[in-house]
Amino acid sequence: MNELMKNKAIPKATAKRLPLYLRYLKMLGDSEVIRIKSKEFSELVQIPSATIRRDFSHVGELGRSGYGYDVPYLIEVFSNILNTQEEKRIALIGCGNLGKALVKNNFRRNENLNIVCAFDTDPEMIGTKIDDVVIQSIDEFQQAVNKEGVTVAISTVPSQYAQNAIDVIVDSGITAILNFAPDRVTVPNNVNVQYIDMTTELQTLIYFDEKFSAKKK
Amino acid sequence: MNELMKNKAIPKATAKRLPLYLRYLKMLGDSEVIRIKSKEFSELVQIPSATIRRDFSHVGELGRSGYGYDVPYLIEVFSNILNTQEEKRIALIGCGNLGKALVKNNFRRNENLNIVCAFDTDPEMIGTKIDDVVIQSIDEFQQAVNKEGVTVAISTVPSQYAQNAIDVIVDSGITAILNFAPDRVTVPNNVNVQYIDMTTELQTLIYFDEKFSAKKK
Repeated sequence: MNELMKNKAIPKATAKRLPLYLRYLKMLGDSEVIRIKSKEFSELVQIPSATIRRDFSHVGELGRSGYGYDVPYLIEVFSNILNTQEEKRIALIGCGNLGKALVKNNFRRNENLNIVCAFDTDPEMIGTKIDDVVIQSIDEFQQAVNKEGVTVAISTVPSQYAQNAIDVIVDSGITAILNFAPDRVTVPNNVNVQYIDMTTELQTLIYFDEKFSAKKK
Repeated sequence: MNELMKNKAIPKATAKRLPLYLRYLKMLGDSEVIRIKSKEFSELVQIPSATIRRDFSHVGELGRSGYGYDVPYLIEVFSNILNTQEEKRIALIGCGNLGKALVKNNFRRNENLNIVCAFDTDPEMIGTKIDDVVIQSIDEFQQAVNKEGVTVAISTVPSQYAQNAIDVIVDSGITAILNFAPDRVTVPNNVNVQYIDMTTELQTLIYFDEKFSAKKK
């Protein structure tokens, strides 16, 4: 059944909410809550209950009318879909302030996500450590990725150099890249790039906040 | 006309893309490109041209058929909508690794976005500096916000303490909050919270990458 679920097509918007659902389900599980109704779950995660029911329906037959959802079962199903039992070994390129912060935090609430190697082009950084991770030259990327079994890369390289860094990542065979530089990079069709753009998020927030305040006046 | 545009309702999905559009338009402007067709712009920003035309139509009458878009005019319109001429003064709560990185980077590509004060609860941090910014006690938040004219807050406080930090921000009268802790916080209706959850972005990326790789096999 797990294989079946893994091969079902889940819409992107739904898939984006699964990690949030799973986090809350685990919190409920830790508090020994064993079942929850979609309305209660909705209040907890602050997502409309209609959205939750629709999301859950994409995943499978997860609940019964009038009973709600079985928490341990949902945890099992969502963990399987997100494959959280399997370690993901991550390489980081760009060891500036943000890169250092990412290595130090190292997704500590998610044991399966591990930044195992870090790279930069700055000769003064190469050979120094961030916690236990030695910063290596970008020239050693391919070799290190093979040796460490890396399947995911994070780039914090600024936009003007990002394409070079992404090219090195793509050449290594990695197809999952999280990019903190907002400018779009060019990659082959089989490579997935996810952008995290803090400035855009902040600007959008400010835009809506100002619209909202204007309306209230 | 600017006031008119500012009061027009722009869908959230469109508003989220405006900062990206503006960034590329400025790059074009810097290269002395004065007009561009939606198809060319689409290739540059990697967003379908139908989406771009629809987004632009929400903003106003921006282009002429067969001519394309006037770059300096678009820059003016989008800058006005996003109000990028006005300085936004930002307070940061939580001076761990990520907080430090944010203060040091300080949205340097956007001159109008400035983190002007930083707060923590750790007595060992209070009084120390991140670049030129002195870390203050959270007890001084309200006073500092008033003095500095802060209108936006960023919290990097971990989930377990985030609600306390958000409460302090809300009590100060700030209504725009960027929250790097993924767990949902409770705020009054007039307060806008934008979550940036790097772990969820990474998990979603890995999910789609694995689905995609499975399909190709």
